[in-house]
Amino acid sequence: MGEVEFILKASLQLSEDIEENKEVNKDLKNFIEESNNSILNKGAPTDKGAHIEEYDLKNDKISLEIIGNKYVRAHEAIIRLINPLSNEIGPKHHIGVRGIKDIDYTIILKDRLEKNNFKEIKKELEELREIDTIERDKNNLILKTKSLKESDFRRGVVDRLISLVDEVVEGEEELVDKVTKIEPGTVISSSKDKKPLIKEDPTKIAQEKGWVKKFPGKGQWTYLPPYTKLLRALMDVATKEIPQKIDFQESMFPKLIPLEIMNKMKYLEGLPEGMYYSCSPKRGTNVYDLFKKEHKIKEEIPMDLLKDGLKDPGYVLAPAQCEPFYQLFSHEMMDEDNLPIKLFDKSGFTYRWEGGGSKGLDRVNEFQRIELVWIGKAKQVKTVTEEILEAYKKVLDDYLKVEWKIKVGDDPFYLEGRKGEMDEVEYPDIPKYEIQVKMPHNGENLSIGSVNLHGTHFVKGFSIRAGFEEPIWTGCAGLGVNRWVLAFLAYNGFEAQNWPKKIKEKTTLLPFVPKTLEWPKNKED
Amino acid sequence: MGEVEFILKASLQLSEDIEENKEVNKDLKNFIEESNNSILNKGAPTDKGAHIEEYDLKNDKISLEIIGNKYVRAHEAIIRLINPLSNEIGPKHHIGVRGIKDIDYTIILKDRLEKNNFKEIKKELEELREIDTIERDKNNLILKTKSLKESDFRRGVVDRLISLVDEVVEGEEELVDKVTKIEPGTVISSSKDKKPLIKEDPTKIAQEKGWVKKFPGKGQWTYLPPYTKLLRALMDVATKEIPQKIDFQESMFPKLIPLEIMNKMKYLEGLPEGMYYSCSPKRGTNVYDLFKKEHKIKEEIPMDLLKDGLKDPGYVLAPAQCEPFYQLFSHEMMDEDNLPIKLFDKSGFTYRWEGGGSKGLDRVNEFQRIELVWIGKAKQVKTVTEEILEAYKKVLDDYLKVEWKIKVGDDPFYLEGRKGEMDEVEYPDIPKYEIQVKMPHNGENLSIGSVNLHGTHFVKGFSIRAGFEEPIWTGCAGLGVNRWVLAFLAYNGFEAQNWPKKIKEKTTLLPFVPKTLEWPKNKED
Repeated sequence: MGEVEFILKASLQLSEDIEENKEVNKDLKNFIEESNNSILNKGAPTDKGAHIEEYDLKNDKISLEIIGNKYVRAHEAIIRLINPLSNEIGPKHHIGVRGIKDIDYTIILKDRLEKNNFKEIKKELEELREIDTIERDKNNLILKTKSLKESDFRRGVVDRLISLVDEVVEGEEELVDKVTKIEPGTVISSSKDKKPLIKEDPTKIAQEKGWVKKFPGKGQWTYLPPYTKLLRALMDVATKEIPQKIDFQESMFPKLIPLEIMNKMKYLEGLPEGMYYSCSPKRGTNVYDLFKKEHKIKEEIPMDLLKDGLKDPGYVLAPAQCEPFYQLFSHEMMDEDNLPIKLFDKSGFTYRWEGGGSKGLDRVNEFQRIELVWIGKAKQVKTVTEEILEAYKKVLDDYLKVEWKIKVGDDPFYLEGRKGEMDEVEYPDIPKYEIQVKMPHNGENLSIGSVNLHGTHFVKGFSIRAGFEEPIWTGCAGLGVNRWVLAFLAYNGFEAQNWPKKIKEKTTLLPFVPKTLEWPKNKED
Repeated sequence: MGEVEFILKASLQLSEDIEENKEVNKDLKNFIEESNNSILNKGAPTDKGAHIEEYDLKNDKISLEIIGNKYVRAHEAIIRLINPLSNEIGPKHHIGVRGIKDIDYTIILKDRLEKNNFKEIKKELEELREIDTIERDKNNLILKTKSLKESDFRRGVVDRLISLVDEVVEGEEELVDKVTKIEPGTVISSSKDKKPLIKEDPTKIAQEKGWVKKFPGKGQWTYLPPYTKLLRALMDVATKEIPQKIDFQESMFPKLIPLEIMNKMKYLEGLPEGMYYSCSPKRGTNVYDLFKKEHKIKEEIPMDLLKDGLKDPGYVLAPAQCEPFYQLFSHEMMDEDNLPIKLFDKSGFTYRWEGGGSKGLDRVNEFQRIELVWIGKAKQVKTVTEEILEAYKKVLDDYLKVEWKIKVGDDPFYLEGRKGEMDEVEYPDIPKYEIQVKMPHNGENLSIGSVNLHGTHFVKGFSIRAGFEEPIWTGCAGLGVNRWVLAFLAYNGFEAQNWPKKIKEKTTLLPFVPKTLEWPKNKED
């Protein structure tokens, strides 16, 4: 923390009105003087502690002005006073301290400003609910607030507020850049050049042939039998050649994730705008009776009634697919003999809200993925990572026959959008490996999967414990099978007889599209 | 519709103030008299039409009192006046009619009341937004309202309001009871008695062994490797022996369903309180910047900001799994030669909000199901239904080895909770067959699947068309594989060596539970 001065005006609320008299005034004066020399100095170099500048007893309140600094912050100082005051002079004068009231706090962050950055910094901070005004005085940034409560003091809100201000002031770099030791984007491994059998956009062909049909929801598709057969063939290959080959066991993870879990993942600090949120109906309401009647009469959804009938958003649709794995071990004590634990899930769709970004079959909001998650000692976790990367490459070469690259990722999902402190977490040198396929029709690199190491990030967030000293790490890897299909089609085309032998075997008798008189556009097959 | 009298007071809003003069008054009088004898009588027996009782021209409005009846309703009558008025006397006097205003509508539903039912009926109706007051006059029910708009008149709101009132008055029976020709609950087919290998609650054992672990979301579980292996074995059997055996092709259906589709299914009129709703983030808002900062400072979710950042609920999590099938063919012209079309989906979880009803592994909010959906001529659809029922029975006997019954269902999902009209839909005599297993530990019948015929219900709702005369029907069937597992375990126990041979083959090397030092409770295996 840089230099800070804290000026706190606040009252201690007493249990009842105190009759002022010499005795009380004397005892209080002694308490204040002694505090200035003892408890308010604790933890600071000599004479560098906090200091009660003024005080006044009136009716049922003691009003105080406390000056604090980075060694003893004024909000910490006032909390330090409460118990001693209750214990030392409380019993004698029947004083009980009920809490801190009338908070008027000025926080001076010294030497934070340069010539031209105040306006910009103010703009970044002025909406914060914990601050009332932001001013400059020379190079100092002055925050004033009457919006804080005692509970904020106790829960570390002021300290995190200052950290956030410092992040804004210093233009704190993204966590991913602090963590990653090799320049993101660096190519670690790549295939030979491959010659695609087609040159057109595979989304366009799939749509014309009726292998897929656009669904009304944004970034959603219905996948018809020929597409699904190919996807299942690739999922079989993926399962056998990657997770099962390196002894991962299949589990089924829930796909509707309570917000409290996303909170432990710190996902909501990172990418809250990238998810779908879900609400469940309230119980014991009869708003749905009225809803049904109004719906029937008006033949449209009475949205206000629906909203009345729903609880606040309590869930998100799983964006990462690995969330339930960490929850499974939350507060559990890991058994050294059973590590590493390696599970995978392929039980359904996961979701990203892409805003305006969804397009074609390459960027969809709802997609199938095989997700591998593992936990163990750091060394074990790294070994598994290497095994997965090796297995991944083999599948790309032997089955998908696509042109691929593995790069150091610039957006590991668990650090995405986050800034600031490293949170006393042990991070790996390379938190993400990204697997990309160069799409022949437009030359773009399509990300078809990733392998992520989290260090102790989730172990800390989910309070996963161990009976041994060594730190526990986790890792996860996604096999983005919807994109595998797209990449496969882009290189191998839509004619099954031209497909690699190992896939052709699994897709004999490619099923028909259920054609109608007007759909699909291309009816020739 | 029973006897009704309509008394409508309203104004026709003119394009500008009309200077009253003999000429205007005479022309208007003629128009009113002529209308009373012609357009307001159209469609009614002689002299039984609607009637303009009073009228008055003042400034830019013609105020009217119209008496109507079941032949010509007053709200229909006033709409009939608009064009002729504009065309006949409009040009001469520069009168353009802008719309209907100042609506004050009294609707008298005759002979609807009995001695003691007014209070109850009033209670059912008084919250409706389309009605201001509800009164009785002898046996007549009188509704008065100033809350309707011209658009309500045009969109049939008054007529549906009256239908709803009549449903309430007559205590309309549930649609399912009107449709179903065999007493719901009737047993159509059943197995021999079976002797279970265990007597305990399989949920309890599964939990103690760590085959499942409770997930924090209501009615949600994480399924560990031994459970998942068994589920996959049963899903394989189910797929081969039911959909694939009768030529269903696999597709992948979206699981996040836009409300407009639920609307076409009429699901929102039936069971809106039984679903999870989803919202996507707004675009072009910067509320998420503030959200992230506040979240970081406070270490809790700023719910008000989150709600500011979300759109209205726009989706539900698929409750029925077949929704996208009807959407796939919405407005398409079906090809006689390609019918029946038979697709199945097993691409992920579907959801029901069970309120307080979720318990154990038997009633969960998130579950896997294999869903079969088909479309064709009525006869084809019925044949497929029989084939599925036959195949289903064989699997229950040969693979699951459970004691089962097939009953006439009392709650086909697509009619559930709905009342009133048959909507000019052709319904099958038995809309639902329910497959139940008698659970040995508590004697309850657990529903593990159903086969549903919809007649023309969805074909009408989704405007599915055909180039031929014969009506098109749809059907759907659910294989509730999560409950299959539970029923299987209840009869065959948890020791794989005791399982039926055909399942044992698929579950050799049952995988281990990833144990920690304190979990699961029963660590013996």
